[in-house]
This record gives sequence, C-alpha cells and structure tokens, in this order.
Amino acid sequence: MTTSISIFDTTLRDGTQGEGISLSADDKLKIAQKLDALGVHYIEGGNPGSNNKDIEFFQRVKGLNLQAKITAFGSTRRKFSLAEQDASLLRIAESGVPAATLVGKSWDFHVHTALQTTLEENLAMVYDSIAFLKQRGMEAMFDSEHFFDGYKNNPDYALAVLRKAQEAGADWLVLCDTNGGTLPGEIHEIVSRVRQEISAPIGIHTHNDCELAVANTLAAVQAGARQVQGTINGYGERCGNANLCSIIPNLQLKMNYDCLADDKLRALTGTARYVSEIANVSMPVGQAYVGNAAFAHKGGIHVSAIMKDSKTYEHIKPELVGNKQRILVSELAGQSNIISKAQELGLDINANNEKTKTIMDHIKDLEHKGYQFEGADASLELLLREAFGETKETIKVDSFKMLVESSKGNMMSEAIVKLNVDGHPVYTAAEGNGPVNALDNALRKALIPYYPKLEEIHLSDYKVRVFDEKDATAAKVRVLIESTNSVTTWSTVGVSSNVIEASWEALVDSLRYALLSMPKSSTTPADSLERIGLVNH
Amino acid sequence: MTTSISIFDTTLRDGTQGEGISLSADDKLKIAQKLDALGVHYIEGGNPGSNNKDIEFFQRVKGLNLQAKITAFGSTRRKFSLAEQDASLLRIAESGVPAATLVGKSWDFHVHTALQTTLEENLAMVYDSIAFLKQRGMEAMFDSEHFFDGYKNNPDYALAVLRKAQEAGADWLVLCDTNGGTLPGEIHEIVSRVRQEISAPIGIHTHNDCELAVANTLAAVQAGARQVQGTINGYGERCGNANLCSIIPNLQLKMNYDCLADDKLRALTGTARYVSEIANVSMPVGQAYVGNAAFAHKGGIHVSAIMKDSKTYEHIKPELVGNKQRILVSELAGQSNIISKAQELGLDINANNEKTKTIMDHIKDLEHKGYQFEGADASLELLLREAFGETKETIKVDSFKMLVESSKGNMMSEAIVKLNVDGHPVYTAAEGNGPVNALDNALRKALIPYYPKLEEIHLSDYKVRVFDEKDATAAKVRVLIESTNSVTTWSTVGVSSNVIEASWEALVDSLRYALLSMPKSSTTPADSLERIGLVNH
Repeated sequence: MTTSISIFDTTLRDGTQGEGISLSADDKLKIAQKLDALGVHYIEGGNPGSNNKDIEFFQRVKGLNLQAKITAFGSTRRKFSLAEQDASLLRIAESGVPAATLVGKSWDFHVHTALQTTLEENLAMVYDSIAFLKQRGMEAMFDSEHFFDGYKNNPDYALAVLRKAQEAGADWLVLCDTNGGTLPGEIHEIVSRVRQEISAPIGIHTHNDCELAVANTLAAVQAGARQVQGTINGYGERCGNANLCSIIPNLQLKMNYDCLADDKLRALTGTARYVSEIANVSMPVGQAYVGNAAFAHKGGIHVSAIMKDSKTYEHIKPELVGNKQRILVSELAGQSNIISKAQELGLDINANNEKTKTIMDHIKDLEHKGYQFEGADASLELLLREAFGETKETIKVDSFKMLVESSKGNMMSEAIVKLNVDGHPVYTAAEGNGPVNALDNALRKALIPYYPKLEEIHLSDYKVRVFDEKDATAAKVRVLIESTNSVTTWSTVGVSSNVIEASWEALVDSLRYALLSMPKSSTTPADSLERIGLVNH
Repeated sequence: MTTSISIFDTTLRDGTQGEGISLSADDKLKIAQKLDALGVHYIEGGNPGSNNKDIEFFQRVKGLNLQAKITAFGSTRRKFSLAEQDASLLRIAESGVPAATLVGKSWDFHVHTALQTTLEENLAMVYDSIAFLKQRGMEAMFDSEHFFDGYKNNPDYALAVLRKAQEAGADWLVLCDTNGGTLPGEIHEIVSRVRQEISAPIGIHTHNDCELAVANTLAAVQAGARQVQGTINGYGERCGNANLCSIIPNLQLKMNYDCLADDKLRALTGTARYVSEIANVSMPVGQAYVGNAAFAHKGGIHVSAIMKDSKTYEHIKPELVGNKQRILVSELAGQSNIISKAQELGLDINANNEKTKTIMDHIKDLEHKGYQFEGADASLELLLREAFGETKETIKVDSFKMLVESSKGNMMSEAIVKLNVDGHPVYTAAEGNGPVNALDNALRKALIPYYPKLEEIHLSDYKVRVFDEKDATAAKVRVLIESTNSVTTWSTVGVSSNVIEASWEALVDSLRYALLSMPKSSTTPADSLERIGLVNH
C-alpha cells in the first residue's frame, strides 16, 4: 500500500522568478500541456493580479481542458482593508480557475519589517483572504512564507498563522522555506511538530540556497507532508526552487511513494528538456536523472564494467525516467569507450586492431586542438565511418567567402560557396539574415537540387564557446550545431580561431551526416532514409 | 568547542571524469595553488599510474611548497599478483607525495562482476595494497567503492573489507556512494553502524545522481564522518561529485563544524569561479552560495523587502562566502529594481519621476526584442547614464564591413570601420584571426591614438545564444561580451539576427563603458580612471 503525494508544479509562476527565465503566454500554454501530459496534479499558472500576460494565460488555458488543476497565485489581502474589495483577490476569483494559492507571512520579523503591520492584523489578513476564496467555492492553498525561519524565531506565532488559515478553511497548508536556508534535520523536526498541532493536509515548498532543496522536500514528506511544490529543472529565484525532476523519481523509485503513473514517469526526461528549450535555458549536462550526462560514462574502468552489467555504475535503469546510457569519448577513457561507440554503430573494431590505434590517435589529436565529441555524436560517427570507408565523399568544398556590411543601420550578409557535389561543380551565392544563415542558405541552395529531402532539415541550436589555446595568444572558438528533421536531432562540431570557419565546418558536417543514407540521385526513396530517422515511420 | 572536518578536494582527479572537463598539467597546477589558498587539507592531484600528464603534475607540484597535502590516487593491486610488483602502486610510491588514496571493492557483486575474482582475493588485494603504502611511509586512505550498495547487499562482507584496510594500517576509511543512489537516511544509519564496528577515522565520498550528494555528506558527518571528499562546483562523472562549495559553508556556517578559517571561507566564491574559468565550464547562474544569482533578487516585492533588511530574503550574508547581493532588472520586478540599480549608480531617480517611466518603457521594449540586462550590467549602466545625460558621445559609428574568405584551407578575416571619435573622422581597417577579433582590432586601432589606456583592456569571454523571435521565422542571436582590464570585469550585450552585428554592438558598448571615465585628450591621468577600476590602486 503506497502513499500518494500530490505534485504541485510552479514552473510557470515561481520558476519565472529565476534569472534569465522569461515566458510568454504562448510559452506558458505549451509548458502547461507538457506538464499535464506528465501527470502533475496542480499547475500554478501565474499571478492574475500582477500582469496581463498571466490573465491571458488563465483565459486561454481553459480551452485546453487539461486534467491537472490550474491554480492562480496571489497574496493575502492588503493590511487594514477588506478581502472582498482587494483587487488582487478579485482577479483570482474572476480568473475562473478551480484553485488558488495565497502566500502569507508566518515569520514575525517579516510582519514587522516587510508588511510593517501588527501580528494580529497579519492573522486577520490570512483568515479573511482564505475565507474569501472558500466563499467563492475555490480550493484554497495557503503558502506559509518563511515558515521554518518563522518557527525557529517564534514557534507559537508561526503555528497561530497556520491555525488561522485552517480555521478559514484552507485545503492545504504549505510550509515554505522561502530563503532556502534550512537543513533537512530541522525540516523533519518542524514538519513533525506541525503535524502534531494541525490537522489540515501539509505541503512543502523549498528553495535550493544550500543545495538541499531536494533533501529538504524528502525530509518533509517523511515527516508527513503530502503535497510537494517545485519546478521543472529547479528553476526559480536565486538558487532556484526544489527540482521536481529529482524529487519525483526519488519519491517514486527509491521511497515507494506514489506520484505519477509509471508510464508517465518515462516522460520526465522529455519534459525537462522541452521546458528547458521553451525557457531557452541550457540544462546542466550533469543534471540528476534527466541530464544528458546523468548516465554517461567516461572513465575507462567504468565503461568496461558497465559493458558487463550496467548496475555496476548506474543507480537506476535510465529508461525508467526516459533517459538513456551514453558512452563518452575522452583521453581518460582508454580505448574501451571508442570501441563501444564504434560497436554501437556496427563497425568491426577491437582493441588489437591497427586501425583502432590510428583512429584513437586521430581523435586524441583533434581533442588536443579543442574538438569535443562528447556533445557532437554525429561528427564522431562521421569520423569513425570515414575511418572504415563507410562514407561517400558527397560534398567537396573548394572555397567560400562571406561578406557582412553595415551602413546607416542596414545589415547585409552574403555567402558565396564553391563546391563539388557528387562530381558536379556548383558555384552559388545566397543572402541571409546573418552570416551563418547565409552560409546555410548557400550550402542548401547548392545541395537541394541533388538531395531534395534536405528541405526537411533545419538548425535547432547553435552554440559558440571561446577557449584559450595554450601557448598562443589567439583564442579559439568551438561551435556546436544541433540539427533536426523534427523526428531526430544530431550534433556536430567545428573548431577554429574564426567563428565563421568553425560554423562552416559544423554546418558541412551536419549536412554530410544527413546525407549519409540519402541516395545519390535526385530521387530519394523514403525507405533508405529510415536508418537515420529522416522520415517518419 | 567545534569539531574539525578534514576537507579532501578531488577536483583534479574525480572532477576530471565529468563530461566536458579536461585539464592540462598547467591547469592542474594553477587550480592546486588556488585550492591551497582556500585552505583545503588534501588535494588529490591525479592518478600517476594512468597517464603522463599526472606524473608531470606530481613532479612539478613539489616546487610549489603548498600547505595542503598532495595525494595520489590508484587502485588496489591486480588480482593474484604482488603489491610490490604492481606498476600502478609503484608509480604512486615513486611520485613522492606524502599521501595516497587507493580505491578497492566493498560490494560483493562488483568483486564477482567487475573484478571477476573471489571475495577472499579481494580482501587480500585491499590488505596488501594498503600495507604496501604504509611500508613506504605514506599516509594511506582507503576509498571503499560502492560501500553503501555493498553494505545493503552484504553488510558482513562490506564491513570485512573495512576491517582489512584498518588492519593494514589505513589512516582513513572513506565510504563511497559511487553510484550516487543512496538516500540521506540510509547514509546516516550505515555510517552510524560502521562507527560502532570500526575505530579508524571515517571519510565520506558521495555522488549527485539523486541531487542528494550534499545532503548525504552532511548526514554522514552528523553520523561521525570526519573527512569530506568532494570537488569544486561538484564536477565529476555523470551528475558529479559532492560539491564542496555548498558543503563547506553548510558545515561551517550552519552546523558549527570547523572546516576553513573564516577569512579563507571568503575566498570560496572566487575559487569556484576561477576553477570554472580554468576548466572552461560555465557555472550555473543559480549555484548555491557562489553562483552569480545566489543572492540576486528579481521579484519586485522581494526587492523592496531586501532594501529594508537583507535578512528578509537572504539566508546568510553573501560576503561570508565572498559573494554579493545583486538586483536584477526584469518585467517581473516592477519599478523597484531599476530604481535601486540607478540609485546604486548615484542617479537621481524615483518612482514618481516622468523620466523614470520613459527609461522603464525603453528597457521593457529592449527586453521584448531579446536584450537581457541581467548578464550585462555595463550595457544597463550605459542606458541609465545616457537617460540622465551622464555620457558623452565619444564614438559615433558610420559603417563597418566584414570580409571572411576561405580558399584552399586558408582563412582571412578583415574589418573596415568608419567612425567618428570625439569629432575626428577615422576610417581604418584591420585583420584578425576571426571576424570578432578583426572588428575588435579595427575598433582599437581607431580609438587607441585618442585613448591609449584601452591597450590594457581585452575580451575575457564571448557568448552567443540563439533564440527564436515570436511571430517571425528569423532566429535572433544575443551576444554577451565580458571585458577586463585585469582589475575589474564588465559585461555588455548585443542583439541581432546577425551574429556579426550583435557582436559589434556589444564590442562598441564595452569600449564605450571603458571610456566613460577616460578624459577626452590623449593624456590620461591615472586618477580619473580609478572610478571604473581602470587602474590598480
């Protein structure tokens, strides 16, 4: 018999307080659908009392008929005023959502310093505001701001605030570690104490200022909290909110609580990456459970052990959260990583092979020059296939030229490319809204007559990293390009002291990779494209 | 009376197993000096048995006369062989370091699967290898790999392994959660049990696969572990090692353990950022304690509260770890953030001012176009100073042209700029190893005759982010440039669909910022440059 935990996602509200996070109403609607598909129980959409974007979100989200309860956020009424005349509370009631979360003070210091009112008036503000929502027939959650700091400073007052919210009919009392400064042992002790004093269901809302938000949430659940508030990827103010992408699998796979259906848990990695994409924030490569390196193996000894049994260096099966195992290539790895990567591709490679040593030396040499194949699987695959004579030289580059001109604020970018495509000389030019776009356009213009399927491919990400070459004053740049055909994505790398050259190299690799399985003629039967996922099936 | 905790840094060894982390011997020596200045007790430099780079490190580090103990890493001897003939153990003994850490198996499953030997032989491997180091007069640490998984599977065997290492004279028994899958409660219980059975000092080494490495380390210390192994910024395989940058302040500021001298703790943020710079890995903006956003405030209500008392939304004083408070500018912030930023600059701004509204609208409009001022303080300062008429128009750009050409593998980048500098027309051209470098060279060539102090300034970072403009097919790029004069750094932003134009905009802003306090004539008295830190003092 497992205990159910209610998952409350506040990516769209508290998450947008994070530095560099800004979501349009469209973005929010897209993310809400993805969260709903993941199966979270509450989606906090925003604060209808604070801005028009959130009002638009609440209007439009109704049409999506989501399973999750959409909730609106606001504060308790202003001091010495009436809840039924509070503009912000009225906006919440009018937003048409079934549930709302109101934040109120529970730390006496904050009542005095931030609200600048009396402890009694704050209790009345909590009571009146929750009672107002309940009169309007809504589910009401009370976010008890700074609860743990408040409890440590004045436990009687902090508990009195919770009792007021409970008396007013709050459906959940959510204990917030707003400043993120509390330790797991303290959280466990205080939540246990609250559970002795208060009968309403308890929620937990933590922040990551001590890198303990996940542990604090787990400690609260162990002490009896039954709702968990957090965000996808831990987005949020300062060091972020508690990261649901770590909390959910910890609770479900390790502690036997029931959060999401098992098949939905498999959507976790996809959800995390989708939200990161929409929020336009790169995911840390080593993010727990859902990061690209969460199940990546680099050390040679580790790699040879996981080839025997993945349990040797993996704490769970990556598929349970929709992630997958990866073998990285690096100087540390010895030969085993490259060999297993080549074997993954079906190439005849083994440690005693002379060819293997040549490839290995070549890769080491490129790494020394600044190439990184960890993030550029497609470039590595091209290298390995070339070494085994498994590629055909489709594109041969003679030269390219790039002109960017700015005059009186008008910009012009033009690329001229001279190529040989399957033996045919092509000399063409194209414009673009920037130099990379112009080069991409010129390349495609040259290739599409021969390979019309390239129309389906586009750049989905472009990253530039400047690094210092040792023993030289010139900085080099590494460009990583991600391309997609909407079915699959692949990444390529280019390195140069010239950002245009590095981009060009990665662009050409990206198209060469896409062409790996395209037939030479201009007719492109769909079946031959399946292997690299260039067609839907 | 506080308890001392021994800090063991393995950034240079286990940290380099992280994806994208690669350190040369020079890099390692630089980081070792920085770690020593921070006051860590042990610095694990690498594995002299695995590669020449680490052998070079151990040779050269002796000349630095560091306070910290430098330690070498290796494995227990190979099965059915003699420790005194083990090449890897001999390399450790010959490396001349005073201490070494040997990793050995304590999970019976690993003995069978990875080592493919008997449980008895593994015990002998542990005993012989530790005894060998002790005979050579070294301090010996035993890293008990997969200890917690091993204990859960076969507690008697896991404890037998520790006893063997203790009998052989190990100075520390380090319990490793190698796969990072253990929870804090389990760690606490198992470490407590070990402490009842074993008298040698206990260390803890955790990984972050459940986002619990910090909490697990704290739980082990509470159960009696007295050595903490971890890395700066949590670098390491998969999801990383335990992050010393969070563990140290948690132990010292919150739990009253003694790790570093108080004045050294203030070097923590600087150390974290330095290591990130050398490792060439961006720090997550929200990293606990040391991140750029760890004490950054965006929400308008939060900002107005911290203006009253920073304790309202900060769990510690940021200066204790060498970090600082920042006020961010964003649509969420209302007016208070921009106002406090302007006040920081000494500008006469307040909420009722008509000028304030104009500036606010302008900033909102720029943000809508994709500008982000959170990471570009210098561009924001220029905007605010301009609005208050506090800048002089030093540089006026007429036009620029950029040509990049590749022919037979030779690259050429050339920039032509037409400017007006303090009323003097300048029309000049320069080459560079890439387009941004060429533009930078041309700009400097135009300006340095008028402002020779610009010689001291150089680009220290260059970032490009592609983002999608809503309602348009053209992707835009945002370029962030960080410049430094070796004393201070400043960041500027440019946005365009053209990476060259965005770079140009950020470059020009960077130089305009540097010129803010430079006198118009070609003589540049040192004292007037002090305000923006352009001279040492």
